[in-house]
Amino acid sequence: MSSHLTADDLQPVAGGGLLHRRLLLKSGLMLATAAATGSVGVAPANASEDLASPSWMRMPGAPFSAYGNPSKHEARVMRAIGANKDLPGNGVSWTPLESLEGMITPSGLHFERHHNGVPEIGPAQHRLVVHGMVRQPLMFAVNDLLRYPMRSHLIFIECGGNSNAGWHEEPIQRPVGSFHGLISCSEWSGVPLAVLLDQAGIDPKATWVIAEGADAVVMNVSLPLAKLMDDAIVALYQNGERIRPENGYPMRLIIPGFEGVTNVKWLRRLQITDQPVMARNETAKYTELLPNGRARQFTFGIDAKSVITTPSPFQKMFGPNIYEIKGLAWSGRGRIAKVEVSADGGKSWAEAALQDPVLPRCFTRFRMPWSWDGSPAILKSRATDETGYVQPERDVLIKERGRNGYFHYNAIAAWSIDEDGAVSHVYA
Amino acid sequence: MSSHLTADDLQPVAGGGLLHRRLLLKSGLMLATAAATGSVGVAPANASEDLASPSWMRMPGAPFSAYGNPSKHEARVMRAIGANKDLPGNGVSWTPLESLEGMITPSGLHFERHHNGVPEIGPAQHRLVVHGMVRQPLMFAVNDLLRYPMRSHLIFIECGGNSNAGWHEEPIQRPVGSFHGLISCSEWSGVPLAVLLDQAGIDPKATWVIAEGADAVVMNVSLPLAKLMDDAIVALYQNGERIRPENGYPMRLIIPGFEGVTNVKWLRRLQITDQPVMARNETAKYTELLPNGRARQFTFGIDAKSVITTPSPFQKMFGPNIYEIKGLAWSGRGRIAKVEVSADGGKSWAEAALQDPVLPRCFTRFRMPWSWDGSPAILKSRATDETGYVQPERDVLIKERGRNGYFHYNAIAAWSIDEDGAVSHVYA
Repeated sequence: MSSHLTADDLQPVAGGGLLHRRLLLKSGLMLATAAATGSVGVAPANASEDLASPSWMRMPGAPFSAYGNPSKHEARVMRAIGANKDLPGNGVSWTPLESLEGMITPSGLHFERHHNGVPEIGPAQHRLVVHGMVRQPLMFAVNDLLRYPMRSHLIFIECGGNSNAGWHEEPIQRPVGSFHGLISCSEWSGVPLAVLLDQAGIDPKATWVIAEGADAVVMNVSLPLAKLMDDAIVALYQNGERIRPENGYPMRLIIPGFEGVTNVKWLRRLQITDQPVMARNETAKYTELLPNGRARQFTFGIDAKSVITTPSPFQKMFGPNIYEIKGLAWSGRGRIAKVEVSADGGKSWAEAALQDPVLPRCFTRFRMPWSWDGSPAILKSRATDETGYVQPERDVLIKERGRNGYFHYNAIAAWSIDEDGAVSHVYA
Repeated sequence: MSSHLTADDLQPVAGGGLLHRRLLLKSGLMLATAAATGSVGVAPANASEDLASPSWMRMPGAPFSAYGNPSKHEARVMRAIGANKDLPGNGVSWTPLESLEGMITPSGLHFERHHNGVPEIGPAQHRLVVHGMVRQPLMFAVNDLLRYPMRSHLIFIECGGNSNAGWHEEPIQRPVGSFHGLISCSEWSGVPLAVLLDQAGIDPKATWVIAEGADAVVMNVSLPLAKLMDDAIVALYQNGERIRPENGYPMRLIIPGFEGVTNVKWLRRLQITDQPVMARNETAKYTELLPNGRARQFTFGIDAKSVITTPSPFQKMFGPNIYEIKGLAWSGRGRIAKVEVSADGGKSWAEAALQDPVLPRCFTRFRMPWSWDGSPAILKSRATDETGYVQPERDVLIKERGRNGYFHYNAIAAWSIDEDGAVSHVYA
């Protein structure tokens, strides 16, 4: 933090006032940012004596707690629930991305997608069965699995239906979490699935696995055996502790980089087979009718994507100043290689700083310094992953996929800033 | 996972049956593990039809929730509270390390050390003042700081008093979390402190910073300015969301690798000066009288350390079998370079597998395959960090520090396994 900025360092590197990301490592920029922030007060000269003693310093505080909770002052930070009124257990809840920092999603705010609510599973009664084209069908209790070797992954899970409002004719006006928040990132720990499948003894002719959950709709999907043998885990822990009920307690299938519906919650059955089962969630749902009349099916992998979380719709700029634009990028194919940001609607771009560590199939937080002069601007972010895949503009995605899309929307999002500092979602 | 094991792969690499860590990447070992696990059931031949339909699959599940909580079946996983009966806000609560996996500590289970309870701070009223040897004293509201550029670190915080029962004459018998659990690991996000200090303009003659919290005892400590300029942050977020009240809401000083007491919670004041204040927590506490009569003071940095969390005291082995020994290692000096495990009380050692990613000043989960034949064994783990520092045996630590120690205990811990599979803490 020792190198101070020079006038050169404040030269924009792209239209609309984007500054070079290296400035985030210089104290000078920080100083410029801070100095411009008019609201920071000058402290009284004799601050140590004059500093008011607030009420909470004049009484003992609250006692210790066996399990902690957020401050009551943060109660507005919650999942936004969008459930079917006639079927209250069918719907989603969104992660409030606009209120979060870093890459971890707190487990209490992990997005939800349920088809018939959250089953209240007794862990002593729950079983996982592996059967079908195997030498020996097996049945595992939770306590059995807890004794196996484990592995941990910091990875995101994104619902294949995330951001589907992007297919609408008119840009939806919602906080970023209620538009793009069917994605969350956790540390998942559990047993490598290959261990369990090896133990059962897979028939060499098997190619598919049907995974089934223990919820009341008996959610199931067909999954390619090769991917499951490669890196899937039967997760028992999320962010250090046992998985929360709404995330699959007592166990969940985790398939790094595959869309949410394949990460079967309340996992109870794995049937090894040589063909997909053609379940509702791989035929009627999570597919797209393409312009050529063919359907896109069994896509599974999440394409690279990014979104700016600050500033974002329903937030307000506080006047001309230097800002940190920040957001999240991810790819089901591996690591994020770069994120570019534009402040002029995509005419020019500059590369953002990526927060270490940059991990495969994990959220990557990006940060970009921006000198906003108070004139209208359009912000965009564009992710590129280590395979070279580049997040597409919306018109490119629509040209490729047509107008029948509902799932797998990963186009660049555009936020418009007006002269008053109001932020809104636009197609630009 | 494709390479199967050979008989050679099951040859022990150290006494007591330790196996090579590479086996954790081979499906064969897993198979051996699983096959030996007698409790795994054989599934009925027609499992898809015979699989019982439990009660939770015959009724709709619970509705969506705005903020989730752990399963009621995990209610026993909690912080162990050790508070002063006469002063209920003075004491500690321990993280239950024996019940956790991976490297993240869920925020609700982050250890606590309070001197007078948890202040209920109104974020709109709270201020952070920077004053003393500065060009311009400054006063920051929470909303001011939220506008600054931020940075995130995945790092541990360890209380300088963690594991102090290790100084006792007799080995304490407690679950590992209630012995070594004054340590937790989170993702902390906030404003680089150098930014705020630069903005105030530090007098070149300044060398120390007195940091003060807004609790009722007005906890304060003296800190070296150079370290604070290097990598300290004023954290506003923990594991993605705003910091929990017991961890310093609305803001906490985070000093990567420095002992817990320096990471001042409810941060309200930073006084820049040229000498330490000689507060209670740097004179009467967090110091050691050495054998030569001199006191060890202002040690700050956490030395490398590790502990086996499974198997550990009050857990029970389930008979001769192949096990995964697992635990946590950390160092305030940087990354963990290696962790060695012994099953014969330290006569021979073998290197454990380290879970990726291995990050500086962060928990590193280690894993080691072990073939236990049912005879008595003594397990130890020994961490080495990237500076070459090696975690000491207990007798070496005592020889160096003497018998007046209370803080900064980082010796190798030994767990004894008896023929019945009971695990206990021993000095060995």
